[in-house]
Amino acid sequence: MAELSINFYSNTLHRNTTFKMVIPNDKRLDGFPPVENGTIEEKPMKTLFLLHGYTGDAGNWVPFWLPEQYNFAIVIPSGENSFWLDAEATGHQYATYIGAELVDYVRRTFGLAKSREDTYLMGFSMGGFGALHTAFQFPETFGKTAALSSALIHHEVATMQPGGGNNIANYEYYRGCFGDPSKVLESDANPETLVKKIIAGKGKMPEIFMACGTEDFLIENNREFHRFLEEQKVKHVYMESKGIHDMNFWQEYAAKFVPMMFGE
Amino acid sequence: MAELSINFYSNTLHRNTTFKMVIPNDKRLDGFPPVENGTIEEKPMKTLFLLHGYTGDAGNWVPFWLPEQYNFAIVIPSGENSFWLDAEATGHQYATYIGAELVDYVRRTFGLAKSREDTYLMGFSMGGFGALHTAFQFPETFGKTAALSSALIHHEVATMQPGGGNNIANYEYYRGCFGDPSKVLESDANPETLVKKIIAGKGKMPEIFMACGTEDFLIENNREFHRFLEEQKVKHVYMESKGIHDMNFWQEYAAKFVPMMFGE
Amino acid sequence: MAELSINFYSNTLHRNTTFKMVIPNDKRLDGFPPVENGTIEEKPMKTLFLLHGYTGDAGNWVPFWLPEQYNFAIVIPSGENSFWLDAEATGHQYATYIGAELVDYVRRTFGLAKSREDTYLMGFSMGGFGALHTAFQFPETFGKTAALSSALIHHEVATMQPGGGNNIANYEYYRGCFGDPSKVLESDANPETLVKKIIAGKGKMPEIFMACGTEDFLIENNREFHRFLEEQKVKHVYMESKGIHDMNFWQEYAAKFVPMMFGE
Amino acid sequence: MAELSINFYSNTLHRNTTFKMVIPNDKRLDGFPPVENGTIEEKPMKTLFLLHGYTGDAGNWVPFWLPEQYNFAIVIPSGENSFWLDAEATGHQYATYIGAELVDYVRRTFGLAKSREDTYLMGFSMGGFGALHTAFQFPETFGKTAALSSALIHHEVATMQPGGGNNIANYEYYRGCFGDPSKVLESDANPETLVKKIIAGKGKMPEIFMACGTEDFLIENNREFHRFLEEQKVKHVYMESKGIHDMNFWQEYAAKFVPMMFGE
Repeated sequence: MAELSINFYSNTLHRNTTFKMVIPNDKRLDGFPPVENGTIEEKPMKTLFLLHGYTGDAGNWVPFWLPEQYNFAIVIPSGENSFWLDAEATGHQYATYIGAELVDYVRRTFGLAKSREDTYLMGFSMGGFGALHTAFQFPETFGKTAALSSALIHHEVATMQPGGGNNIANYEYYRGCFGDPSKVLESDANPETLVKKIIAGKGKMPEIFMACGTEDFLIENNREFHRFLEEQKVKHVYMESKGIHDMNFWQEYAAKFVPMMFGE
Repeated sequence: MAELSINFYSNTLHRNTTFKMVIPNDKRLDGFPPVENGTIEEKPMKTLFLLHGYTGDAGNWVPFWLPEQYNFAIVIPSGENSFWLDAEATGHQYATYIGAELVDYVRRTFGLAKSREDTYLMGFSMGGFGALHTAFQFPETFGKTAALSSALIHHEVATMQPGGGNNIANYEYYRGCFGDPSKVLESDANPETLVKKIIAGKGKMPEIFMACGTEDFLIENNREFHRFLEEQKVKHVYMESKGIHDMNFWQEYAAKFVPMMFGE
Repeated sequence: MAELSINFYSNTLHRNTTFKMVIPNDKRLDGFPPVENGTIEEKPMKTLFLLHGYTGDAGNWVPFWLPEQYNFAIVIPSGENSFWLDAEATGHQYATYIGAELVDYVRRTFGLAKSREDTYLMGFSMGGFGALHTAFQFPETFGKTAALSSALIHHEVATMQPGGGNNIANYEYYRGCFGDPSKVLESDANPETLVKKIIAGKGKMPEIFMACGTEDFLIENNREFHRFLEEQKVKHVYMESKGIHDMNFWQEYAAKFVPMMFGE
Repeated sequence: MAELSINFYSNTLHRNTTFKMVIPNDKRLDGFPPVENGTIEEKPMKTLFLLHGYTGDAGNWVPFWLPEQYNFAIVIPSGENSFWLDAEATGHQYATYIGAELVDYVRRTFGLAKSREDTYLMGFSMGGFGALHTAFQFPETFGKTAALSSALIHHEVATMQPGGGNNIANYEYYRGCFGDPSKVLESDANPETLVKKIIAGKGKMPEIFMACGTEDFLIENNREFHRFLEEQKVKHVYMESKGIHDMNFWQEYAAKFVPMMFGE
């Protein structure tokens, strides 16, 4: 399984950034070396964009045998602690970075992620929020999205006051990511806003896979968003099982959702 | 010359980050392999912290023969487009990241940068601003600092209004880095404030090396800070010569200042 | 847990090479930032040198929570398909690279692996052979060694004829690693030769931990070496359990041997 | 300019290996973000395979502005000290690795190096030998090759006796790379053999660019090969100028040959 590290200039972020990739295109070939200038038959490969959580950076956490088994590449960007949102400050447009520029760059450089049908998203925690939000902001780009233990904290952020915040970060941090908290619920930083826009515009809705551990401190946030989707009659898979906010849960559900997303 | 890439969890940034190092400790040794459990005599090595400019990231631009010739290691952090300042938002304390946490981490991990006398700073453009500002914020930590073509734009930022900005970035970007622009001049984001504090507290002043090209769009900003230092009777080296805001000028002055900083 | 990649010039290999490290020295600290120029109390850390198998390269396979739990760094070299032996050809001295040069470099650069008491080895397959052989070649350097599913094929190599080989590689390959096969058993490429030399010289014997899966194709080779150690009255831990030649077995026994090696 | 590091399993080398790439496909785009699912027009890009010298590894030494200016990607493999030859030992087939497997892998993964007309080679010292030899071994694959200060030492190797060698490496080393020295001149390790085969088979000859410094210790070897090509009536560019065996000469001639190879 080939592992890549790519440093490039992002027009969206206004700076160089590094992302990683996993491409299962180096299996042992019978009869190597091939005839010179010959061709190797290849199956088309789907691509999964993988979003990390708060405190994390580009690093692969998908169980290692899945990309080969289900024939998909993984693209793993670094999003700092951005909540994967388009903020107001120049160069802080992380949703556009993922959903427009990086997809486009991967398409041009690797010939991967060529259509909505083979371009998927997955993330956990802050990256679970991002997996939902980015898919709703770019519903023509992503065909499926999987959100694990998602930090769906937009309602909490909406109540924050200057000088406040929560036990993770302060008001200025959340304002920098989500914009003015008092306007979050109406803004495009709220995934609910985006879902309603897709419905109103009769747009394509990505296929949605959600999971959260019953002992996770974010369980009520996930249940609330699950109810929202039901109210909006948005088809989605929602699963709960015993678990906390940790890597064990995320690897368990990566292994559960990948076959549902990539299998026939 | 050994080249290192180090990914670690920064308490200051609240996330994983990657920095690079160059350590000239792999010269060819006569008589290798040495006697087992023998010792190799080593000269103590100084350390240069290197700050990149706007749009950049961790990458070495010091001419390659200098670290060996003058026996110093280089530490090269990534500062995104932070202006290397302590901003208000949780995790955006880049000055503290460089001046306290990273110095401390390098000291503990490599036994380098152990004292003010062997811990220096250098940067260009945004990193030139950072090289001055960080040295003034941590004057007990850095003995010398070199600032090339420095983006000393604090007076310009101080005039910015909501909805404004300049042709590089918008108001929200500068507010995120410098804090409320209307309060910048009195704040610690202003390197002049820090210089005055050191003088008032009779603290140690780092040795200062400044240079700017006469065709650089930042030449007047650099002349203004040069005059400020003269007014404050702060000893410093200031040089101008023909040049624009580009890598040729920075490599020329890296090669000029390194012998002045590291030579006997 | 800090992850490092280090590229340096190896005098032994006559070329640049890259090794990786894991150092659990970036835990979250209470009260950061520390007092300037203050000190952080640290426990001394042991170091594990980790040797990969045939077809592999530098990559960490030790379960991720162990280094923090048992407070040890990991050094992970690339040995190509060298069998970690000192071959005759210039630059192919892999045993000396690991047992003398790399230990020395890590000691000088990181202050780690300072004594035999905190310098251990572990490997699987070809790296299991290397973990035993290198520890026996440098018994003053390594205090403990763990060898999993070890490719103890020196007796098989000794029977190889020009034009021959086995289903893994040809005669010229084995000749390049082990030297002339017809002289292997008397040579220092044979770990048994080295064990006898240590005993004859009344030298220190590293503590030995061996394991092999009962379904592994190398099980008889491991049993044979286990009997050899018993005959030589060399104290060692030897374990067998159900398992094949795969990562599941190696992670299981890494998790079993690390507490035995690093625990009190 | 995007910089990539790619680790993959090489069937030829029988192990994981890492190569680097430079792709100038991240220039700033006017009007970003583009229309969703829109397309960006691109010029087709040629590809240069870059071979390092003895003691080196994958690292870019082409002056940084050339790939953008002449619109070509660079692929930079690590060849250890192999002389880029197909040796007898399993997994030591470096010529086939470069000329068949890596070209094929780059073609499949990046859509680059699709035809002989856009697939070029360049190297210095041992890599200059490799640039000539590999192009002659795969003349249908490489359209042009540039060889700087080439270590064309096949005639010297042919005279080596067991126990001998030269001041760089011993007999066993050269035997491992070139095969039995006494048979080198007739073998495919001799680039002259390959040139004669192409001529005899009326095959396509790559365009050849050679240069060597007049103070280089390899100058006579280069003059000798130049005469050989003239005798064989093989069209080629041959240049000499003041210079020794160092990076200054290689960067000077990279900057001289790239426009000749990639310009219209």
